[in-house]
Amino acid sequence: MTAESAHPALGLDEVVHQRVRLGILAIVHEARRVEFGYLRTQLDLTAGNLSKHLSVLETAGLIEVEKGYEGKRGRTWLTLTPAGESALAAEIGRLKQLIDRVGLATSE
Amino acid sequence: MTAESAHPALGLDEVVHQRVRLGILAIVHEARRVEFGYLRTQLDLTAGNLSKHLSVLETAGLIEVEKGYEGKRGRTWLTLTPAGESALAAEIGRLKQLIDRVGLATSE
Repeated sequence: MTAESAHPALGLDEVVHQRVRLGILAIVHEARRVEFGYLRTQLDLTAGNLSKHLSVLETAGLIEVEKGYEGKRGRTWLTLTPAGESALAAEIGRLKQLIDRVGLATSE
Repeated sequence: MTAESAHPALGLDEVVHQRVRLGILAIVHEARRVEFGYLRTQLDLTAGNLSKHLSVLETAGLIEVEKGYEGKRGRTWLTLTPAGESALAAEIGRLKQLIDRVGLATSE
């Protein structure tokens, strides 16, 4: 199997492709900088589940986690790193390839 | 959060979205009917790993597994059920929505 013929699904990276993590990356990208609680509501997750996925993304160097205060309340802010932006763009590129292939098969 | 404002990532179904299973559904859709060994080569998987994912898809009613012979050799053939075609189409629809939202954020 040559690189040209490899199916686009082969190139998908589970760190980025996993449903919740793809949602996190997309929302943080859209909003540039988001607060933990906002993300939790948007994705309808428990704090523990969201933390687990954020930890995977932080370990992979895709998001930056910043702790601070809003008044007296502790807040956690999230932004994508340049590597995170690249990883999201690569995932979107592979999904487009996959969608194109499936679409071509439909129209045959 | 209303249904209209819900992020498309929320609607992704892990049974269909998971990297390997999305690849299986896309390839079987493209080829209409594929042999187990062909799929295994295309997705670069061990037989055990492919069987595990096929079992998830079969249990969910998305693929049909047909055992037969080619000469004296046992062969396993796979096709998508109508529910499998619908599930793949729904996944592609949600991925397109997600790509559109990410794309809009990029161009802002």
